Amino acid sequence: MGRRFDTVTLLTDYGYTDEFAGVLHSVVRDLAPHVALVDLTHGIAPFDVRAGALALARAIPYVAEGVVLAVVDPGVGTSRRAVAIEVADGAGVLVGPDNGLLAPAVAVTGGASRAVALDNPDYHLATAGATFAGRDVFAPAAAHLCLGVDLDALGSAVDPALLVPGLVPLPRQEADGLHAEVLWVDRFGNCQLNVGPDELAGGLGAAITTEGAVVTIALGAERRATRVASTFGGLPAGSIGLVLDSHGMYALAMDQRSAAAELSLAQGDAVTLTEATEPAGASGPGADPVSSPIELRRRR
Amino acid sequence: MGRRFDTVTLLTDYGYTDEFAGVLHSVVRDLAPHVALVDLTHGIAPFDVRAGALALARAIPYVAEGVVLAVVDPGVGTSRRAVAIEVADGAGVLVGPDNGLLAPAVAVTGGASRAVALDNPDYHLATAGATFAGRDVFAPAAAHLCLGVDLDALGSAVDPALLVPGLVPLPRQEADGLHAEVLWVDRFGNCQLNVGPDELAGGLGAAITTEGAVVTIALGAERRATRVASTFGGLPAGSIGLVLDSHGMYALAMDQRSAAAELSLAQGDAVTLTEATEPAGASGPGADPVSSPIELRRRR
Amino acid sequence: MGRRFDTVTLLTDYGYTDEFAGVLHSVVRDLAPHVALVDLTHGIAPFDVRAGALALARAIPYVAEGVVLAVVDPGVGTSRRAVAIEVADGAGVLVGPDNGLLAPAVAVTGGASRAVALDNPDYHLATAGATFAGRDVFAPAAAHLCLGVDLDALGSAVDPALLVPGLVPLPRQEADGLHAEVLWVDRFGNCQLNVGPDELAGGLGAAITTEGAVVTIALGAERRATRVASTFGGLPAGSIGLVLDSHGMYALAMDQRSAAAELSLAQGDAVTLTEATEPAGASGPGADPVSSPIELRRRR
Repeated sequence: MGRRFDTVTLLTDYGYTDEFAGVLHSVVRDLAPHVALVDLTHGIAPFDVRAGALALARAIPYVAEGVVLAVVDPGVGTSRRAVAIEVADGAGVLVGPDNGLLAPAVAVTGGASRAVALDNPDYHLATAGATFAGRDVFAPAAAHLCLGVDLDALGSAVDPALLVPGLVPLPRQEADGLHAEVLWVDRFGNCQLNVGPDELAGGLGAAITTEGAVVTIALGAERRATRVASTFGGLPAGSIGLVLDSHGMYALAMDQRSAAAELSLAQGDAVTLTEATEPAGASGPGADPVSSPIELRRRR
Repeated sequence: MGRRFDTVTLLTDYGYTDEFAGVLHSVVRDLAPHVALVDLTHGIAPFDVRAGALALARAIPYVAEGVVLAVVDPGVGTSRRAVAIEVADGAGVLVGPDNGLLAPAVAVTGGASRAVALDNPDYHLATAGATFAGRDVFAPAAAHLCLGVDLDALGSAVDPALLVPGLVPLPRQEADGLHAEVLWVDRFGNCQLNVGPDELAGGLGAAITTEGAVVTIALGAERRATRVASTFGGLPAGSIGLVLDSHGMYALAMDQRSAAAELSLAQGDAVTLTEATEPAGASGPGADPVSSPIELRRRR
Repeated sequence: MGRRFDTVTLLTDYGYTDEFAGVLHSVVRDLAPHVALVDLTHGIAPFDVRAGALALARAIPYVAEGVVLAVVDPGVGTSRRAVAIEVADGAGVLVGPDNGLLAPAVAVTGGASRAVALDNPDYHLATAGATFAGRDVFAPAAAHLCLGVDLDALGSAVDPALLVPGLVPLPRQEADGLHAEVLWVDRFGNCQLNVGPDELAGGLGAAITTEGAVVTIALGAERRATRVASTFGGLPAGSIGLVLDSHGMYALAMDQRSAAAELSLAQGDAVTLTEATEPAGASGPGADPVSSPIELRRRR
């Protein structure tokens, strides 16, 4: 027998209109009634594996010990593997498709110790069709893990090094500035960039990270001045801030308005950062930010 | 005293913007703190009793023992009955308006053994108005059932045979093909039809249900070729599949795209299925699909 | 040590697309695993403190004993205080920003007995940025209260009288009628006014509150006849009702249709009520409704 767990934390692209997410809860409740379920979100855009992976990586440092059940699974029913990945010395197991969805969260927890393909049908629900692996494969696996079934019982061992990696884009320092990307646009219109203090300092010089420093952003042909700030409320009305967000990354933001709407920015858009007063290519200590891994910060 | 329960499973059209669904949770939590609540969905379209009934019937085979609290209730406060219906030899009770919302789920569980109208005001919350029976009548009934109050204490006995039935449309085989209907369009744009393998084989011949078989669909004047498939990912890009879904019904679907958007289909729309190469009226073993009841498949 | 609690009830403007609300759950689950969490809603419009305050005040009579964690916080990270407010002889504590969000709910419960600013960093999570107080300040405070940490340990005492008040608009009786306001438009398009039976009787005479009485509403230049009713289903198709809602307030409503869409009404819009057949200014017992406090009714 393996370790028992009493929390299953969920993230999917199932939305809130259909009963899909509720059925996952029901399956776990039916099999393992001692378990508490925590919904991170079911609002990931349909099929958007990268957005799901990033949301899970942002949340994972706060997730309680136990099982994570994550499903953004455009390849459901095909040959993509269904997997369970043990992390944090056995304190957690991530269950989901092996398509990159879980990889950034696994990395944030320190990496996988064991992994299996969920190919033991004894732990699947019998089903009429192959289109709802969340219900028929992933949720039963999560429930059985909580009941103390050992990871190895769920299926064939998989070398953790061979799991599909997650792709998080790195910023690049070029002659015309620090080339960044919008990782995430949140409900409030804040646009998180793939740039933290080290990358910004590396690209534009250490002084640039102080409150009030001015950074020029280029969005295609358009240029806008932004100001480094620590709170939304400290930004003058209508101005764009470069606010250090709750994950230690910079976000383009406005006070009580959507920066995404103001700048017409969406997830994946390119943003180039330069110092306000001189060509950005000349600045910085010569570091090559492309080799500086961007990682979502761990708590504590 | 009746049997005690420790799970209440909810489905409503209350949405997620107002606090309605949260108040149902609060009422149950306040009266019966030992109960775990499971939300199937609160995203049923306002007043759409049929959509709620179908979602509940799809989910019910997976719902844990206990009480189901379902509210899609356009007639709230009028003479429509509020009811509680015992099913599965007492392992479950469905609570909600007697307007057809509960009937398909009751049928899936094998039928009602007892039913009552929730007309005993001792188990209602005092209220200023008659517009929120979910809070004032249904949720308290669910909580009291969980506490072990017997069904009969909640109100007057109702003959289960006199409960309002649910109406699930049956496909019809006619000279020009198998006339079906879109039961459900899900978040991903898959369009579930009221046709399973038996109906399809009955209408178009047994060979038609094999992987790769071609079925022509007529949507009004338009005709499209579709291919029978077991996974979304097995469909060529841009093509329409007839995929056996997780409830054992066929759904019009595409790989990582919305078939509903591609075909301009909505819930309730008519779709006629014919064999690709010959008039469909000539095929089939002469079965009359109208007499074949369409039922949502039970698990196991 | 203070009293222990086992329920945390949440209301935020975090929405359902991002993982924000799920992270609040995770933080509480991690710190205080014995706690059950109840979501009232996370669908408050971004930054809409008044809408959040009204929703919380409507729900609070039904909320189970314990901690309420409410976050609609446009001033996050600025000098606005983070507070915890004890109510109901210690049976409840409301945690959130001191910006008026909590005040109406506090009033409904009978007022605050103690309050503190959440300025003791021992009970905060270490964080990279100052933009997610829900995760870093409010949720840990809620969890620690549930664990029995005394309110006073969380930070400096605050005089409850100096908390930021909530502003609920009062109706005004003028020569041309009773000037009301739309407090809330719900999912079904019902438009709750800041007018209950006492205010309506005070303004237009006691007879006006009887079922079937006709009230004229003026929306700018437009006038419409409405009928006092106790249920939506009792309204003739296409007609507008003045329905006593589940909070004891009147709502403009239609049967299975959206009155808000029909009347182009939104939260905050002005509506003037007059008797159907004579100028409203002449009627009523001379009461001045402006001095009659509008309060959300308590249960029982």
